[in-house]
Parts: sequence; structure tokens; C-alpha cells
Amino acid sequence: MISGEFELIKQLAEFSKESPESLELQDDGAIISCSNNRLVLVKDLVQAGVHALENDSLCDVVRKAILVNLSDLAAMGARPKFILLGLCLAKNTDPDQLAAVAETIRIECDKYSVSLIGGDTVVGLGPTTISVTAIGELVLEPILRSGAKIGDDVWVSGVIGDAALALRLLQSDTNSHEFNCLSFEQRSTVIARYYSPVPRVELGMNLSGIANSLIDVSDGLFADAGHIASTSKLSLQLDLSSVPLSPAFAQWSMHVDNFDLMLSVLGGGDDYELLFTAPMDNREQVESMATKLALKITKIGNVTTGNKVVVTNDGVVINADSTGFTHF
Amino acid sequence: MISGEFELIKQLAEFSKESPESLELQDDGAIISCSNNRLVLVKDLVQAGVHALENDSLCDVVRKAILVNLSDLAAMGARPKFILLGLCLAKNTDPDQLAAVAETIRIECDKYSVSLIGGDTVVGLGPTTISVTAIGELVLEPILRSGAKIGDDVWVSGVIGDAALALRLLQSDTNSHEFNCLSFEQRSTVIARYYSPVPRVELGMNLSGIANSLIDVSDGLFADAGHIASTSKLSLQLDLSSVPLSPAFAQWSMHVDNFDLMLSVLGGGDDYELLFTAPMDNREQVESMATKLALKITKIGNVTTGNKVVVTNDGVVINADSTGFTHF
Repeated sequence: MISGEFELIKQLAEFSKESPESLELQDDGAIISCSNNRLVLVKDLVQAGVHALENDSLCDVVRKAILVNLSDLAAMGARPKFILLGLCLAKNTDPDQLAAVAETIRIECDKYSVSLIGGDTVVGLGPTTISVTAIGELVLEPILRSGAKIGDDVWVSGVIGDAALALRLLQSDTNSHEFNCLSFEQRSTVIARYYSPVPRVELGMNLSGIANSLIDVSDGLFADAGHIASTSKLSLQLDLSSVPLSPAFAQWSMHVDNFDLMLSVLGGGDDYELLFTAPMDNREQVESMATKLALKITKIGNVTTGNKVVVTNDGVVINADSTGFTHF
Repeated sequence: MISGEFELIKQLAEFSKESPESLELQDDGAIISCSNNRLVLVKDLVQAGVHALENDSLCDVVRKAILVNLSDLAAMGARPKFILLGLCLAKNTDPDQLAAVAETIRIECDKYSVSLIGGDTVVGLGPTTISVTAIGELVLEPILRSGAKIGDDVWVSGVIGDAALALRLLQSDTNSHEFNCLSFEQRSTVIARYYSPVPRVELGMNLSGIANSLIDVSDGLFADAGHIASTSKLSLQLDLSSVPLSPAFAQWSMHVDNFDLMLSVLGGGDDYELLFTAPMDNREQVESMATKLALKITKIGNVTTGNKVVVTNDGVVINADSTGFTHF
């Protein structure tokens, strides 16, 4: 974020208000109506060295750019249908990689039943920059960030923190003993969470009628809870000990024994799990959906009056600022 | 273009064939159906230093990124409706520019009755890179590149060559006498054609039922004629002396008196005029539309059998390669 960037976004949001399709630029995507159908459009940009490691392979960056956009569709409850791909390749791109890039795109499109329908490829002057536009259709009602209600349970899918832990691991000094506590398999699993997030498309599509608000965890658990809180004009009370962790994360956390470090990695983002709020009465529905989708879904808090995220640990408030943690 | 890039695009086009929406990645955009409506989606990326001059102001780059995408919609005969904007800002972006950037976006959106509905803003590591996704609706039938028929007239709107001439002027040595022949007003007009191309939206929307094939002149007149030729599997015979020039271009051309140079600037691209083919029987309709839109539309050639662009000058063939000129 550079000085003035926030102001720019605010100004853009201001005049986009005239178009209901924009959702005031406050959500994960835009919704356009087309006869009786509604389409969700999302567009997120990924740059090597910023949203991916500088030395990540082009395939890894392209895959991630596609997956994070599909995750944004999931966060609106939409079924992914199409992508357009804007590839701005670094000048020194190894031409031998490009066949593998095409294959990566094909594989991810196939996996999520998405068609590549357009875009452009250029060779640029900076690091590889990939802009994906993903289009999904709404089968039922969209679930916005702004829909949380007082008394809602707060739920999250999967486990949190692994992707940020992987980033720390990938950037760690080779002499560091910090990750000695993890087996090779554990490290691999954690690293896969960073490179190949799993957009929770099925879950997103199934939450219509059950959840009141929904977001994907990209900025970080606490920051994204903050987005629900601010757009819903309510508070999210999160219980730290309920946040689902992988065995690897739990083990690393015990090993480093540093609460602040643990908390910053936990809120580090890039999880691409779904964070949602749902009325208490829908608990059974959420739980049976978890069973149906064979996906862990964990209740981690409640929605209350207020306008912030309150994280408690053993009943003690550990973070009560209004924006939540941000990791950059 | 780096080695392998063409192969990548070919591979992507290959598997996108399965989706009719992609038009095999051969046209200016994609078409998706939505109940009874059809939407056209285009996505073109602009990078400072590549598609714009390194020292161009951020406003100029943003404006151009929007306009070239609206031109792609015009080239499909679609009515622009929405844009999504992916802004990857250079780190050294002057924050004081950003209010003007927001205002530029608002002005261009207003001018073309387009709503900004989404996108993202990030600060990157390279030069400013802007990816625009523009969405239009098809009022009538789309006009593809591939629809040219034998016997069609070839038409082009406006004048050709000014934008490339402006680029040459902007990059010229301050000591050069090449542009002495142009008045300050002429230079300003030519330069405006480079920075503020006018997407021919009204013309594009009105060509349905009249034109058989359509493209916007972005790569260059001869290269884009080549795209119609190759996708239509026919030849375009162009008469050089018919190509409409601005007084400034004609004056500069006489002044430099260098046929090859003139030809390369004429085919230099960035014109964002519409190039189309239409049956001879529709001549009157084209001409009355030109009057209605107060827009110059000039017949510059014919469609014949073959698979290339043939440019003649006073009856002499001056270029008969199959791809047409390319300017980089």
C-alpha cells in the first residue's frame, strides 16, 4: 500500500456506488444480471515477487492466480464457469516453461470445470504479472460480506495458518532450526497449501440459504473477519483456541513457543478457506454439510454488536483493534 | 514476443476450442450467453514502457487501457456496459497523481456510459501494469473477424497512421527536423490520437447486418487486415492510395519523402479505428451511416480468394506476404 492508494480505492468505490453491480467494490466480486441469470465477476492480479515468491516457477504463479480467483467466486457462492487470463510475462521467461504453463492452465480449468475463453499474453518489462478474470454463475442467492446478523455463529472451513507458515518456511535461513520439528511430509503438506490452495467452491455454492455472510480467507483470518465486521457493521468475537490448526502448525507453534509470532503467522493469510457466519439455528445444517463434503468446518466465534474483531484467548481479549491483523 | 510465446497461445487456443464462448481465442473478445442475452468480454493489458511510453503519466496509461478495451468491444459490435480494473502500480507512483487517476477513470466511464464494477489495486515491483476487463452486451448479432466474404468491400473508419506518427514524434530527437513541417496544432492533434484514441463504439454497434467481418486497428492496418484474412481464409486487396490520412500525416509523408518509412508508420498501429468488410450491395448503407455518425468511412479495398493481404500502390503490388506488416 502506498500513500494515497487507499484514497484512490475510496474514490473509485464512491462513484461505483451508482452501479448496484459493483456492490460498492466492497465484496469479493461484482454481480451482473443477464435476463433471469446472474453472473459473478471477480478479478485479482498476482505478481511474482509480491503475491508469489520471486523464484517460484511460472507454473506455480499461474496456478495460484487461477485458484485465488476461483476462491473469490466461492466466496460469493457462485459456480465457476469461465476465466480470462492476462499474462504479462517477464522478459527472461524460459521459453521451455511455456508448454508446462499451458498444461497447468488446462489442468486447473479441467479440475474446476472452467473454460478459458479469452485474455492476452504480452512480454513486459517487470516481473511476471498475471491478471485473471473469473466468471461464475449464481445458482441461488449470493452471500455477501455485509450480511452478518447479531447472534450468528462464525465458522471457518479447513485449517488456518498453513500457507503463511509455508511462506515462512520457504523464506527461512537454511541454518535455522525453527522447522526441525516438522517431518519432510509435514513440510511438503504445508508447502502445498501455499502453492495449491483449494478454492472451496462446493462449500460456497452450498451455503446459500444457510450462511448470512461469507468471505474467503486471503488477507488473513483476522483481517478478513474484519471485512465482514466492517461491512456488516457488527463485531466478530473469535475464540483463538477454537481456530482449527493442522498438526504441523500446532507442532511448530509448540516448538517456537512464541505467542506473538504464532498469532502473526496464524493471521498471515493465503489460506483460501471460507469464513462465514450463520444463524445458530443452522448449526445442524452446517455440520451435516461438513460431513457431506468431507470437509472440516469449525465454529470459531459469534457475531455481536459493535464494529470490530475481538479475539479472545482463554477468555482474555488479545486483540481488540477495529481492523484486525494485516500481514504486510 | 519471446520464443515459445506463440506456441503457448496456440496451445491455449487448442484447448479453448472445446468452449464455443472462446471463439478459439481468435477474435477481439469472448461471447457468453446468459438466458436470451449475450455478453462480450474482452481483456487487454497495458504496461508502461511497453504499450505506453515510460514517462507517460499514470492518467494517460489508465485512460488508454480503458479505451483500447472499449475499442475491442466496438470491434465485436457490442455496447459497453461494465469494466473491471486491475491496477498494478509502480512502487514509485506519486501519490499525488492518484486523485487525478480516479477522476480520469470516472470521466472515461461517464463518457462511454460504462460502470466500474470491480477489480483490484496493488503496488507491484515493476512498471505500472493495467489489466482491464470490459463487458458489453450484444444488441444484435456479433461481427467476427472470420466472416469476410469474397467480393466484400474493405472499409476503414477515420484516418490511419496518426497514432504511430505521434509515437515517432514523441520519441524523436529534439534536434530532429523531421516534424518541422507540422504546426503546433497539427502536432497536438496527432499526439491526442496516441493518448486518447476514440473507440468507435457507435459504429461497431451499427454494423450488425451490414458488415460481414470486423476488427479494430490496434496492431496496425496491414497486420489487422491480415487477421481478417487469416481467420476468414481469404485475401484482402488494399489500395494504398485509398487509405485515409490526416492532413498532418500527408504533410509529414511528403516532407520525409521516404516510402518505406511512410509505410511502416502507416501500418504502425494504435489507431483504434474499425476495419470491416461488407457486401458491395451495402455501400449505400455504409455511406449513410458515415453521414449519420459524422464519421469518415473509406473504402480501401476488396476481399478476394487467397489467404493474405495484398497491398497495391498505383496498381503495383508492394507487399504480398501472408501476415501483413507488424510493427514490433
